[in-house]
Amino acid sequence: MDIRKVVVAGGGVLGSQIAYQCAYKGFDVTVWLRSEASIGRAKPKFDRLLGIYLETLEAMKTNPAAYCRGLAAKDATDEQIDELKARAQQAHDDIVYTTSYEEAAADADLVIESISENPQDKIVFYTEMAKHLPDKAIIVTNSSTMLPSAFAEYTGRPERYLALHFANEIWRNNTAEIMGHTGTDPNVYDIVVDFAERIGMIPLKLHKEQPGYILNSLLVPFLSAAEGLLATDVADVETIDKTWMLATGAPLGPFRILDVVGLTTAYNIGLLDPRSKDPNTVQGKVAALLKSYIDEGKTGINAGEGFYKYGK
Amino acid sequence: MDIRKVVVAGGGVLGSQIAYQCAYKGFDVTVWLRSEASIGRAKPKFDRLLGIYLETLEAMKTNPAAYCRGLAAKDATDEQIDELKARAQQAHDDIVYTTSYEEAAADADLVIESISENPQDKIVFYTEMAKHLPDKAIIVTNSSTMLPSAFAEYTGRPERYLALHFANEIWRNNTAEIMGHTGTDPNVYDIVVDFAERIGMIPLKLHKEQPGYILNSLLVPFLSAAEGLLATDVADVETIDKTWMLATGAPLGPFRILDVVGLTTAYNIGLLDPRSKDPNTVQGKVAALLKSYIDEGKTGINAGEGFYKYGK
Repeated sequence: MDIRKVVVAGGGVLGSQIAYQCAYKGFDVTVWLRSEASIGRAKPKFDRLLGIYLETLEAMKTNPAAYCRGLAAKDATDEQIDELKARAQQAHDDIVYTTSYEEAAADADLVIESISENPQDKIVFYTEMAKHLPDKAIIVTNSSTMLPSAFAEYTGRPERYLALHFANEIWRNNTAEIMGHTGTDPNVYDIVVDFAERIGMIPLKLHKEQPGYILNSLLVPFLSAAEGLLATDVADVETIDKTWMLATGAPLGPFRILDVVGLTTAYNIGLLDPRSKDPNTVQGKVAALLKSYIDEGKTGINAGEGFYKYGK
Repeated sequence: MDIRKVVVAGGGVLGSQIAYQCAYKGFDVTVWLRSEASIGRAKPKFDRLLGIYLETLEAMKTNPAAYCRGLAAKDATDEQIDELKARAQQAHDDIVYTTSYEEAAADADLVIESISENPQDKIVFYTEMAKHLPDKAIIVTNSSTMLPSAFAEYTGRPERYLALHFANEIWRNNTAEIMGHTGTDPNVYDIVVDFAERIGMIPLKLHKEQPGYILNSLLVPFLSAAEGLLATDVADVETIDKTWMLATGAPLGPFRILDVVGLTTAYNIGLLDPRSKDPNTVQGKVAALLKSYIDEGKTGINAGEGFYKYGK
């Protein structure tokens, strides 16, 4: 199956990155949004992405540290990079925006759902889209927290539905976790793996459904353990990070990773554990500790301060 | 307090490394062992360590990758390294071996207990040693799995007793986790921190007792999560490791770390969880998976194969 037209539903942080990367890699991209106001809010994100791609590509000519795996081959020449800069501009200009299910669905090969993490919103979207999509179309979800089996029945094509989960800053962190539900057709799964590679991603294949995919299944218990050591005053932030880095050779310890993830996200994940409601448990102490940081505005690297301070 | 005479109890893998490193760093070292046969088994370990230190120091003259933090300053000159080689030889020759509590205890400043992880053996050792030790002497335990509070009462000096926990290949992995019990005198704690630095270790300070110290408190849940993903067939070894390395920039994924730790150790840690007895739980599937590797002799990097194969 040849994928040409890609519909990205949602113009948020990830939706805009996914849509722009697909266009940059040569696909016909239509961004579907709920309203004209959503289009108005999304377009500046695409302008910003164009700027990031152009600057990064230019920097890659002289600075090896600027290299981003999702943008070019490691050994790209200056001429090739100039071609890619032209392509980045063209991609920006070629993206089609619509609020019409019918226009988005017309002759679509792949729909990438990246709308809000609200089950009811997703069900409405899938149900409406299914009325217009051609039979050939594959639908993938970028949901971080929900499983494809929860929505397969609403897509009108459960065997052509699975998860394709991106990381933030897709042009640099170019991994894509690919996860079907029990009804996903293995051939469709393989088509999505191939598509992920064609848009410059490194596909990470899951054999079955797993909440949190692979990465969060590893990160959450690791970060929770570190938070627990701090919240129960076993050791301080710097000592815990140093221990991990010295013992494993890792460039970042758990609290530096938490600053990147964001303390609000960590706090919300912690609240999913019912023990976090009891202030006498480790989980309750962790929740209280994270809340004290968040209340002071120390939500992580994007705020300039989390467990560490960052230069502006 | 000036520490001069250090008694290391135990001549196993870690005991011999600790004793030799202390002698290398200029302390008077007496190795206490239970029997003449134990002395016979320990001495070849010290011969081997001398060889490793001499070879590593020589290699450090020309190969930056050979550098070991526990052996020398990063910018040591060839002349300084030659002096250190002479010191390594002297350290080897100066170590005193004894089976006598009385001889070991005489004028001892610090006792480092690194005997078998058997509570009864430790109690006998502490009780006998307490009869002969001068009041000034500090006792530390290198135990990985037991807490100082469990033994403080047998030492005759609970306020001068705490844990000083080393990593294997101490000359390279030069971290020392330092952990008191509630009765440990803070001044004694500080003396041990200072001593750790003087024998070339990076002290990692715990404020209170924590089973598994810092490192294993992070490693165990992280590695267990990875084992669970594999044992429930969510993804394969290479994909899980790749996911972690790409997302965090770490040089090793969890299964490469497990090969270093050793699958038998991971298996034994897993068995501490009662759920591992039920083959239908994730923990039970992990235990069965690890046992299948161990039964095939794939116990990790030391065996030449674990989750990965290693060249001999």
